[in-house]
Amino acid sequence: MTYREAAGTDVWATVVRPTLVVDKAKVTNNIRRMMQKAGNSGVRFRPHFKTHTSLAIGAWFRELGVTTITVSSVEMARLFASDGWQDITIAFPLNIRALAEIEQLAESVRLGLLVDSIDSAVALASVRAACDVWIDVDVGYGRTGIPWNDRPAFVRVLRALSRSRHHSVRGVLTHAGHAYLARSLAAIEEIHHQSVERMNAVRASLLAVSGSDLEVSVGDTPTCSVVLRFNGVDEVRPGNFVFYDLQQLALGVCTVSDLALAVACPVVGVYPSRKQAVVQGGSIHLSRDSVQDRNGVPVYGRLAFLTEQAWDLLPEDCAITSLSQEHGVISAPAQVVNQVRIGDLALIIPAHACMAANLVREGVVLAGGSRSQALPHTHS
Amino acid sequence: MTYREAAGTDVWATVVRPTLVVDKAKVTNNIRRMMQKAGNSGVRFRPHFKTHTSLAIGAWFRELGVTTITVSSVEMARLFASDGWQDITIAFPLNIRALAEIEQLAESVRLGLLVDSIDSAVALASVRAACDVWIDVDVGYGRTGIPWNDRPAFVRVLRALSRSRHHSVRGVLTHAGHAYLARSLAAIEEIHHQSVERMNAVRASLLAVSGSDLEVSVGDTPTCSVVLRFNGVDEVRPGNFVFYDLQQLALGVCTVSDLALAVACPVVGVYPSRKQAVVQGGSIHLSRDSVQDRNGVPVYGRLAFLTEQAWDLLPEDCAITSLSQEHGVISAPAQVVNQVRIGDLALIIPAHACMAANLVREGVVLAGGSRSQALPHTHS
Repeated sequence: MTYREAAGTDVWATVVRPTLVVDKAKVTNNIRRMMQKAGNSGVRFRPHFKTHTSLAIGAWFRELGVTTITVSSVEMARLFASDGWQDITIAFPLNIRALAEIEQLAESVRLGLLVDSIDSAVALASVRAACDVWIDVDVGYGRTGIPWNDRPAFVRVLRALSRSRHHSVRGVLTHAGHAYLARSLAAIEEIHHQSVERMNAVRASLLAVSGSDLEVSVGDTPTCSVVLRFNGVDEVRPGNFVFYDLQQLALGVCTVSDLALAVACPVVGVYPSRKQAVVQGGSIHLSRDSVQDRNGVPVYGRLAFLTEQAWDLLPEDCAITSLSQEHGVISAPAQVVNQVRIGDLALIIPAHACMAANLVREGVVLAGGSRSQALPHTHS
Repeated sequence: MTYREAAGTDVWATVVRPTLVVDKAKVTNNIRRMMQKAGNSGVRFRPHFKTHTSLAIGAWFRELGVTTITVSSVEMARLFASDGWQDITIAFPLNIRALAEIEQLAESVRLGLLVDSIDSAVALASVRAACDVWIDVDVGYGRTGIPWNDRPAFVRVLRALSRSRHHSVRGVLTHAGHAYLARSLAAIEEIHHQSVERMNAVRASLLAVSGSDLEVSVGDTPTCSVVLRFNGVDEVRPGNFVFYDLQQLALGVCTVSDLALAVACPVVGVYPSRKQAVVQGGSIHLSRDSVQDRNGVPVYGRLAFLTEQAWDLLPEDCAITSLSQEHGVISAPAQVVNQVRIGDLALIIPAHACMAANLVREGVVLAGGSRSQALPHTHS
């Protein structure tokens, strides 16, 4: 992804297609807050870089002192390794078709891998460079991992791994993705505590087999944002918190002032009679990930406007309510639509920032004195 | 997008991440059939290249004699212009922020542009290279375009366009996207006939103002696949038909044997107790576009297997039922899941081929003698 600095130029005039807009101050603030929470709790901070997949934003983490990261694929590990990152966990089940690439990577960086089956454990033995192995635990999400209470399965995988001379089992790892389904902050917190309890039950039950103490790694933005302190874990791996988005806002785990990513989309049609406008900004830019508005209708993004110090959301009824591949349809009250002109840039806060950041490969960084000239929601 | 030819090598062994698999014989057949229908009807065939966005697949169209194409953005027009395409319509409302790029393009290719407002028509006057202008008509979809029965609006836009010395109004253009909501082939056909009728009403009503006869351009895969002959139009612009997908299959406008695109995804987890497997193949590969199974549950892709001459779908209950950013969860009966091994390639027919082709940038072409060795759904 290529980011241009907005400071000092009329950056909006140069935006001709859907473009990420990243508020550096907010990103830095989001990173610093999560990092401090980890530091205060005495746990390792290993943020998930799949959210931004950007060397430029990775460098902001590095400037703040982050040295350990998480990614979701071998390609992504290669990308960040090429930029000097030296301690990378691929928090995705081992892809045994990529063992040659993995071996090559592990020769140059400290590489963490995720395993939840005997087949993967056995296949890993062919990798002759040292890797840290994490055993994937299902604490209730039901996507990947060994169910937390299936001790015989853990023991079988541990035994299979013990045949690998080159690798050491570093710990147990989970992603409590079911936190995204929680309906209240209390429920999110409860999922976190239950996950940590289950992870520690796994750790304790394996002590006799593993020989050494295993680390516990957890991480998802909802639980990591809500708890005040990380107890009972060695490492946290949140990702989305760097930008946050409408999904996190709907969960209540961030505030509007934490939202650090928008997509600037050119307005190409205005239809006052049906209170809609159309932007270049479709499912290939925003993705079809959504939140529900108060009527249960899916919303793919919400309109925002720049202020001097930040940006702010327009009311909930100013939203992207329909998407095609390249088109986004904005629905809004008449007084809003009547102000929109063809050629404006609509600033859209996406439902799911990770997806938008992955899909749109050009970006603008708001930093320094770029705000005063930056009024994308007026005629350019 | 980079495509490798599968013929003559053990291509599956080289697939280490989600990869498009394109059946060239089916693609060629799909193109030829639509092209012949257009030819027999005496209308111009201007296929939409947003579906594949691939120079390699564009070349297959060219080999069959196609010279006029449709795209959905200025960037896409530039991509295909760079490969020698000389007659390109951007069937997306004019993005007036990209006028400089448009002028540059129009200097080297015959460029068609889409306009539905006075503001866009006025802005276009600054482009000093000749363009073909199409007026966007809303025949009932309600996304962009001037409502077909709003003659005063058409007249205003035509008058605004007449001030552009460099451009000529070539015709009226529509996309009957509401065909995707139809519940029967008869309903799709009815939408086509109604659209064509409305387009001809627009054409007739503008004859006195435009001075010359306007062309009529229509195009969407459902209606173009269903009707036997194109009457009352000058040009058709279907796109998806090159691959087809589960959405088109659900509409009934293609058969299983027309499905020309799959995504090969590495299996990274097998969970017999819950009758599921997990692949690397998530919403960043397949998109969250879906079809509903018979119980109304969203399905993001269906499992397929290669045969000697083609591929075939497994039953409907072998499907991608859940997606994360990088993970796809396959649900299937026990006897299917029990045959899946970690390291297999699962062949997934996507719900929406345009999205998968846009998201996954590496591909394999099945052609010639590549089938006999190509059995991705067995242990590699």
